Formats: sequence, structure tokens, C-alpha cells
Amino acid sequence: MALKQKGKQSVCFENPPVISGAASVVGKKEGEGPFGQYFDTIEEDSKMGADTWEEAEAKFQEKAANQALKNAGLLKKDIRYMVAGDLLGQLMASSFGLMNMEIPLFGVYGACSTMGESLAIASMIAEGDFAEHVLAITSSHFASAEKQFRFPLGYGNQRPKAATWTVTGSGAVVVSRSVRKQELQEKKEYDRVSDRAKAEKGRVKIKGITTGKIVDYGVKDSMNMGACMAPAAGEVITQNLIDFGYQPEFYDKIITGDLGMVGKDILIDYVQARGYDIRKQYMDCGIEIYGADQNTQAGGSGCGCSAVMLAGYILKMLEQGEWQRVLFVPTGALMSQVSFNEGNSVPGIAHAVILERMK
Amino acid sequence: MALKQKGKQSVCFENPPVISGAASVVGKKEGEGPFGQYFDTIEEDSKMGADTWEEAEAKFQEKAANQALKNAGLLKKDIRYMVAGDLLGQLMASSFGLMNMEIPLFGVYGACSTMGESLAIASMIAEGDFAEHVLAITSSHFASAEKQFRFPLGYGNQRPKAATWTVTGSGAVVVSRSVRKQELQEKKEYDRVSDRAKAEKGRVKIKGITTGKIVDYGVKDSMNMGACMAPAAGEVITQNLIDFGYQPEFYDKIITGDLGMVGKDILIDYVQARGYDIRKQYMDCGIEIYGADQNTQAGGSGCGCSAVMLAGYILKMLEQGEWQRVLFVPTGALMSQVSFNEGNSVPGIAHAVILERMK
Repeated sequence: MALKQKGKQSVCFENPPVISGAASVVGKKEGEGPFGQYFDTIEEDSKMGADTWEEAEAKFQEKAANQALKNAGLLKKDIRYMVAGDLLGQLMASSFGLMNMEIPLFGVYGACSTMGESLAIASMIAEGDFAEHVLAITSSHFASAEKQFRFPLGYGNQRPKAATWTVTGSGAVVVSRSVRKQELQEKKEYDRVSDRAKAEKGRVKIKGITTGKIVDYGVKDSMNMGACMAPAAGEVITQNLIDFGYQPEFYDKIITGDLGMVGKDILIDYVQARGYDIRKQYMDCGIEIYGADQNTQAGGSGCGCSAVMLAGYILKMLEQGEWQRVLFVPTGALMSQVSFNEGNSVPGIAHAVILERMK
Repeated sequence: MALKQKGKQSVCFENPPVISGAASVVGKKEGEGPFGQYFDTIEEDSKMGADTWEEAEAKFQEKAANQALKNAGLLKKDIRYMVAGDLLGQLMASSFGLMNMEIPLFGVYGACSTMGESLAIASMIAEGDFAEHVLAITSSHFASAEKQFRFPLGYGNQRPKAATWTVTGSGAVVVSRSVRKQELQEKKEYDRVSDRAKAEKGRVKIKGITTGKIVDYGVKDSMNMGACMAPAAGEVITQNLIDFGYQPEFYDKIITGDLGMVGKDILIDYVQARGYDIRKQYMDCGIEIYGADQNTQAGGSGCGCSAVMLAGYILKMLEQGEWQRVLFVPTGALMSQVSFNEGNSVPGIAHAVILERMK
């Protein structure tokens, strides 16, 4: 077998894995935003009856995981691995939220880029023939994130214009090994081929991935994460275009996770300086998820932001044929309370995933 | 291609990836222990000239990463991915320590089981033909861990008998795609085959993996992590034996990460109750790494513990032919400061990796 590498930082899958189901569970504020109708479940109580915000976030993950399985028509026993993460120290929400799934777990952390990372690893597991079905899942919660990274909610601090609002929600995606024509033909299972091939039609496949490096431009402002992450997003988008030899027009949409208003401008300039104009295709989940009247300053953020927009909206647009190809680029600010208090910068990272509608 | 799954939770690699280099960097106390002679580098200054303990831990990782590349005879540009993690919130040591490597990064978290997780993912990436070389690396630091999870060092708290001592150190392993006989024969590169096959002789290959689930028996004592982790280790070891149809005697050693004295007894009883006697093969990195005179109570811990013992000692024993087969089982306690303060239990997880000497 030849290497499936593409260019410097990408993988082009020979037999692209398929997304066979997804689910999004969001909080009240997210449900009141412009995409409310797209999410599977809107929780009126953002604490979900839990005693703590961390436990609440765990419940969001558990619900999204179970819903994604249901939407994919699968049972827990069908899922071989979970690739899961969140923003909290030691991945609290994933550890406690996914315990009852009783599925082998790879915990991952890429800050708000985690959905891109978990999709990338899940795709490699499925395409490498290590599993039939893998669950990729992440979450974030406004209250647990503010407590972890900034101020307790009770403090009621003022939020500057560059600040973003952490999305309360969890998005889960089932990544499945695609029909292997050769294998099935060898076994003469023609009927099964056509059944499964039919089932895959109109589904979304993961054609390739571009994995990001840490990029640090020295920004130290935890209230301006867009500026921290934009160069990392710019690097990985540019590298994706170079590695695959695409122009931005190849994609119907290039969608970042949570750069917000400030990060957007930096990203567009950054990519332009590398010779690419992505203004026509560009969209940011953080900018879109809340309405202008929702008072969230620069937009939404958190690894739940890109995860619920993917599971709730982006995949549906692809499945319905509104878009054919999307470059999905969750973006992460590698910030911790301790490193921030110690005066360190907030490095960025971003992971790109090529989503394509199957014909 | 058929699935490479084995049993319920395992993968058996068709073309097992090879460990082409490894490195261990430890602190002064670890260097003074019984395995001092085996480690690549012993740092006399556990702060490594840094201003903070977190920065010091990052420097351990950076040093181990560079040393592993050197030992493998590779350059940064040869490494396609890093799979890295540590115990700190938001993987601070990995984020800051590996930034200068400028290699695409998958951040992972499995508490002290992280080395098992990163080896598992790195193996799948290499064996799935997604990369030629992948770096798996983890670290821990006594001072940064105590500060993160228990008490500041200056507090001088008493340590109960069940407590373990977090290892200061980082272990790094380069996982490489193995010679593909078929591919190379097709290309008629016989000379290259024999050269590479020769180079692989006596090396250690990763024959398979068994990925753990979260196991929670409700233990809430952050000073008794052995008890938290032992059931998870027992589950994954038993599952490995079942999935592959092995008896414990198949392995020269079954080596857990950091169960310590208390966890050891629980594990042996647990596995015995499932019908397996592992007493002859069993070893725990945490019990071994410090001498009886080093006053560490139940032993060493931290994801650096199993990582430096792997890179420093276990791989050498295999390469020298002292052992032929080892089941390496890093063990993790999914504890966080916040979940602990909120009165939650400390769930465990463990990941098993089959290491075998190539003939």
C-alpha cells in the first residue's frame, strides 16, 4: 500500500469514510439564535437539572452521543471507538458524560479545534480498517468555560467587543467505513453492495484532512481569542489549498469554528497575503450562531460551537445538496487558566476536514 | 481490505509498526533511583532554568522529543504527526513544549494512561499508511502536578501511605511504518527491502492494541489513585487476553503504568477473579522507578512514569532480547481539581499495547 499522504500536511483518503449520523444538543440561547430550527434538541434548562455546570456539560455530551447513534440507526455495541474532548481541565465533560456509553475512548484536546481533531482521528481509524463505526464528539458550556478560563458568572464582569460567547452545546458525528466495492465484489455480495451504496448516496464523506501545527503570534488577550487563532486557521487553510492543488472556488464554503468578527478580518488578510481570496466562500460558525440582537459581542466560541453547527446545519446543507464541498476548519486557542496567569501567550491551532456530498 | 479488529476491543496489526527510536529525560530524583543508568538524560535542575514548573515540564518534553528524533536518526521534517499529551489543564506542557517542533499535532488526554493512548493512535496512523513516522510523547512533573491536583509544594502536607509521587520526566517514542514486503517487491526494490529489513531486526514492533473504556468504581480519594485505576487496568488486561486468545504466559512481562503498591494488589485479585493469574509476569512502572529509600510511599505516578520507563528501560530489555513480548498498560486516573472539589469520584482508564521483539 502506498502512503495516503498528500502534500506537506494532508491526507487524501483512498476510500473516504462516510458520516452516517450526527446530532446536536444546544442550550436555550443557542436555540433562540438564527439556527434554532436546525438543532436536534434545545435544552430550556442549561443546567439540565445537574448540581454543577461541569455535570451539566457532561449531560449535553451524553445526550448528543445517544442521539447521534439513534440518527445513524446504530446501537452502542456498533461503535468501536469514541474520540472525544472538551475545553475543561482533564476533559471532565467527556470523562463523566461518556462513561455510561461503555465504549473504548480516546480523549483528545485541541481547544475549540477539537471537533476537527476528533473527526480527523475518527476518519483515519475508519479508513485504516480499524473499525466500522467511530463516534467523534465534543462539547462546551458557557458557564463551565467562563468559570474555568475567565471569571465566575456571579462576578458580572464587562465583556469587551473582541470577546466571544462560549456556546452551550454538544455535537456528535458517527464516522463510518465506506462501502468497499472491491471487498464486497470479491465476496460476491452484490445485493449488499447496492443496498449500502444506495444508503451512502447523498451522505457526506470525509475526503481528506489537513492537520494543523501550533501557531503562536504572541497574543496574550484571553478576551480576544479570534486574534490568537486566526493565524493558525490561515496556515491550515492555505496548506490545504496547496497540498490538494485547489483554488478557494473548489469549495462552496470554507467554514472556520469560532474566529468571530475580529478573527475573521485577520484571517482574510492573512490568506490574501498568501495569494488566496476566500471572501466569497468564507463563513465562521461563531459569527453565525447568534443573532445580532443576542449581545454576544464578537460571536460564539467553544468546541461546541463548530460541533453543533456541523451536526445541526453544515451536514444538512450538504445532504440536501445546497453545497457540494465544504472545508470545515475548527479553530482552537490553546489557553489555560494557569498559563494565562503566568503571563504566557495564547497559541492557536486549527484542523481542516474536507467534507463532500456523495453522488 | 478486511477489518483489522480483534475480538471486542482490540486491533491486531497486519503489518505491525516499528519503534525506530525513543528517548527519556528525567529529573534528579528519578535519576537517583534504581533505573538512573537507563535514562538518556538526567536533569539536575528539575526546573530546567524556567520561571515556572509548567514551563519546566514543557522543556522536558521538548528535550525528549528532540532526543527521540536523534536516536531514531530522523529530522523534524521526517515526522508527519505528533500525538502528545500531559496531565495539566489544556495540555499546557505539550502546547508550549512542542510548539517549536513545527509538526502537525494531535493533543491527547488519558491522564496517566496517555502514553498508551498516544502509542495506539500513532500505531494506527503508521499502519493505516497515513504517515511514515509519528512521534508519541507525554510528560509529567512532580511540582506542576501537585500544584494542579493537590496542594502547593510550600504547604508541606503529609502524604498518606497510598499516595504516589508524580514522576518528573518525559518519554518520547518514534513509531514508524514497517517495511512492506509486498509493496517493495512489486517495485523490485530488493536491495532496499533487505537494508530496511535488516535495520528492523531486533527492533520492537507494536503487534496490537487494546483500547480501554472508562471504569468507575466510585473511589473518591485523590491520594489513592492506585485503587481508582486498578479496575480499569484489570478490565483492559483481561480483555486483551480474551481478544487475542492468549494466556498470561504468552507475555514475558505485563507492565502497568503507575498502580503503585495498593493498586497492584487490587489488580492481581481483579484479574484472578476473571480466571487469569498474572503474578509471575506482573510489573508496575510506579513500583519500580523509585528505590525503597526514596520515600515515595506507594510508588511513582504521572504519565511521565510509564513513558520514561518505556523509553528508558522496557524497550531496551526487548531490544537486547531479555524479553520477547511485553503487554504495556499505562493506567490513568481521570481526576481534575474541579471534579474532585465538587465531590466526584475518580474514574480510571487504561490502554494496552503489545510490544514484541522482531526476529
